[in-house]
Amino acid sequence: MNQASVELRLASLGYELPQAPRPLGAYAPATQAGGLLFLSGMLPLRSGAPAYVGTIGAELGIGDAQNAVRLAVLNGLSAARAHLGSLDSIRRVVRLTVHQRATAEFTEHANVADAASELLHLLFEPAAPHTRVVLGVSSLPASMPVEVELVFELEM
Amino acid sequence: MNQASVELRLASLGYELPQAPRPLGAYAPATQAGGLLFLSGMLPLRSGAPAYVGTIGAELGIGDAQNAVRLAVLNGLSAARAHLGSLDSIRRVVRLTVHQRATAEFTEHANVADAASELLHLLFEPAAPHTRVVLGVSSLPASMPVEVELVFELEM
Amino acid sequence: MNQASVELRLASLGYELPQAPRPLGAYAPATQAGGLLFLSGMLPLRSGAPAYVGTIGAELGIGDAQNAVRLAVLNGLSAARAHLGSLDSIRRVVRLTVHQRATAEFTEHANVADAASELLHLLFEPAAPHTRVVLGVSSLPASMPVEVELVFELEM
Repeated sequence: MNQASVELRLASLGYELPQAPRPLGAYAPATQAGGLLFLSGMLPLRSGAPAYVGTIGAELGIGDAQNAVRLAVLNGLSAARAHLGSLDSIRRVVRLTVHQRATAEFTEHANVADAASELLHLLFEPAAPHTRVVLGVSSLPASMPVEVELVFELEM
Repeated sequence: MNQASVELRLASLGYELPQAPRPLGAYAPATQAGGLLFLSGMLPLRSGAPAYVGTIGAELGIGDAQNAVRLAVLNGLSAARAHLGSLDSIRRVVRLTVHQRATAEFTEHANVADAASELLHLLFEPAAPHTRVVLGVSSLPASMPVEVELVFELEM
Repeated sequence: MNQASVELRLASLGYELPQAPRPLGAYAPATQAGGLLFLSGMLPLRSGAPAYVGTIGAELGIGDAQNAVRLAVLNGLSAARAHLGSLDSIRRVVRLTVHQRATAEFTEHANVADAASELLHLLFEPAAPHTRVVLGVSSLPASMPVEVELVFELEM
């Protein structure tokens, strides 16, 4: 991918990368193994504090959850850029997993995850789309409503 | 693996691969990176509609859950075949993750997951068995009871 | 990594590797693909029986959960050693995922996961720390409170 184009596309969509999230313990935001870059679970943090808190389907609607998931993805891109030096080095998104803290009755997980998939698609995927796993969970750190896992393939 | 043997074994076990599931958004059913094939989360869909709905340990018993998990695995094999052209290209199953929408009191997750492990074992594993992760979740898309993740290693 | 140092560090921290856990079905504790070693989900089992049972935030406090998570990690290291012959072959921990069976209100997942991260850090990480995913789940096999996923990069 061309970094300029990824960052320009981000800007043209009205997004700005937040500061890279700082790990909250003895782990790293990103690790490279072989041609893959694994990120730690990304949360909807802004300046280190939860920007969204609550349960999807109860206090939070789908629009809130979609905003939270986009913020978690932007944190992930920021962590990837901090690790790689440049988003240029990303060949493509291999896998996106979206964990959603939702009520037991909630059924619209795919709608929420679409916010992440569409953003990644616009940024990285003229060619090869990512795979996706969408799950409901009963609790997440600090009661945040979403957590995102990302695995990238790097340019060799 | 020999495709004929995998497909013949499937048939001899009384299974037929369903139509490959269509992604429900801006993502793909399968992505290849290095020597690995990652699938999107596979659900117990039949012709695009949920074939099983409910909570394991409440409306659904272990037998239902095992049928649902086998169907999700068959959807995954169908997606893999559609991507690869042939199940021939699979060297083996690296990892199976079985997410189960169960009551908080449910304890028999391993029993449910065995339905998937045994099917994969019969099809792919004269030699090297897969690793497995078995989890309970509180909700899944469209209230389906199981979701399966699969990672394959490919013949080089 | 130098095996002696990993095993010596373990001993100097007062830990001993338990017997390698035996798979409970048609799967394996560990699978190698490319330069990565994937483990099956590791539970807080001791001699094949659950050493901890219950829900974090209800019957179990953070100290119990941290002990459970350390035991699950030790089971993982034992499985890795049984597969590899020696912990020597591990270059580093790529990814740690800590699933926690917690109440919906529980917020201290990171605290619990730190027990695993700090142990892995002391053993393997003078240089390159692991990535981490921390999740709450509503149920786990046999009502155990934690399940750990580990992916290692191997020395080539």
